[in-house]
Amino acid sequence: MVATQNFQISTSGQGDVRDVTRQVADAVSRSGMRSGIVTVFAVGSTAGMTTIEFEAGAIEDLNAVFEQLAPREGEYHHHLRWGDDNGSSHVRAAMLGPSLSIPFEAGRLLVGMWQQIVLVEFDTRPRTREVAVQFIGD
Amino acid sequence: MVATQNFQISTSGQGDVRDVTRQVADAVSRSGMRSGIVTVFAVGSTAGMTTIEFEAGAIEDLNAVFEQLAPREGEYHHHLRWGDDNGSSHVRAAMLGPSLSIPFEAGRLLVGMWQQIVLVEFDTRPRTREVAVQFIGD
Amino acid sequence: MVATQNFQISTSGQGDVRDVTRQVADAVSRSGMRSGIVTVFAVGSTAGMTTIEFEAGAIEDLNAVFEQLAPREGEYHHHLRWGDDNGSSHVRAAMLGPSLSIPFEAGRLLVGMWQQIVLVEFDTRPRTREVAVQFIGD
Repeated sequence: MVATQNFQISTSGQGDVRDVTRQVADAVSRSGMRSGIVTVFAVGSTAGMTTIEFEAGAIEDLNAVFEQLAPREGEYHHHLRWGDDNGSSHVRAAMLGPSLSIPFEAGRLLVGMWQQIVLVEFDTRPRTREVAVQFIGD
Repeated sequence: MVATQNFQISTSGQGDVRDVTRQVADAVSRSGMRSGIVTVFAVGSTAGMTTIEFEAGAIEDLNAVFEQLAPREGEYHHHLRWGDDNGSSHVRAAMLGPSLSIPFEAGRLLVGMWQQIVLVEFDTRPRTREVAVQFIGD
Repeated sequence: MVATQNFQISTSGQGDVRDVTRQVADAVSRSGMRSGIVTVFAVGSTAGMTTIEFEAGAIEDLNAVFEQLAPREGEYHHHLRWGDDNGSSHVRAAMLGPSLSIPFEAGRLLVGMWQQIVLVEFDTRPRTREVAVQFIGD
């Protein structure tokens, strides 16, 4: 069985990390499937998906490391070409990746108790993000 | 067809990288499926999954880059909040990601000859890790 | 339904980033499936898969960040062991990851308009890469 859902989430821009575990778990329930794989995919090239303990300190730490890796105010070839200011966003998103696949069994996501599914916004302005959620299972 | 398995693996803490290719390949055999996708998922927010040439030098190099990116003895907001000492673990795990999807065909994982599937332990203490292995195929 | 395809792509070595969106979309068409998940897997331990806005400036920026993270001319334990010169390649590839799962619906990949699927070559010499493309859906 295959089922596709999607949801939207509004972000405030770079550094906004959103816990979407409930949205994904709800989508598993709605799918009616008991076991399988859910693939969560952030549509767009300036956001990423991962898991983290969703706690303000850990989020701040994650943002600090991305800022060190690809500073927002750094110089980017992408800026020269388009007059954009989001070169840091593209690089960070490409490194993190847009996609996460998570097994579920007995209708329950096989994530750890302190492991939340998050969308990481990297763009320099607020965005409404579309997240595609695809189930395969039975 | 959908099948879920899991296995456990004990690690010695941060920097312990474990080759789990055999466990995953064995799980493919036990599933009885010939072709499909296996999703390997590290349960918990302080470990990650990837592939690497499993060779002591490359492992040491990988650890050195993570240490530079998020030093173990660095200052983390996560520490202030919980009195934990594993802020570096959370950041590294979120950047690497918990999940890996690998195609298999004719009962064989489509990985390269020098490409092993590894669990990367980031936590600062020894852990017993649960790895969920989910198959979809036929 | 399960289907496996693969394609090859020749690269010029480290820093060569190839847009393979068309190859993946064509494979979706050939599969005859309407909705499901496609897993794109770079075979080998010195290449990775991700998505990015495929624009020369953003590619250059991505390469610059990887060069800073794991410099090509740095010192690597992997070199000492094998006499290789591609320690930077192994570390970069392990951090990016070999695998990407993308949902498709109505025969169309659910990627953003400016979000291309890319193979990132990290090896220090030209390579012919094999990319495994696995579909599950109906």
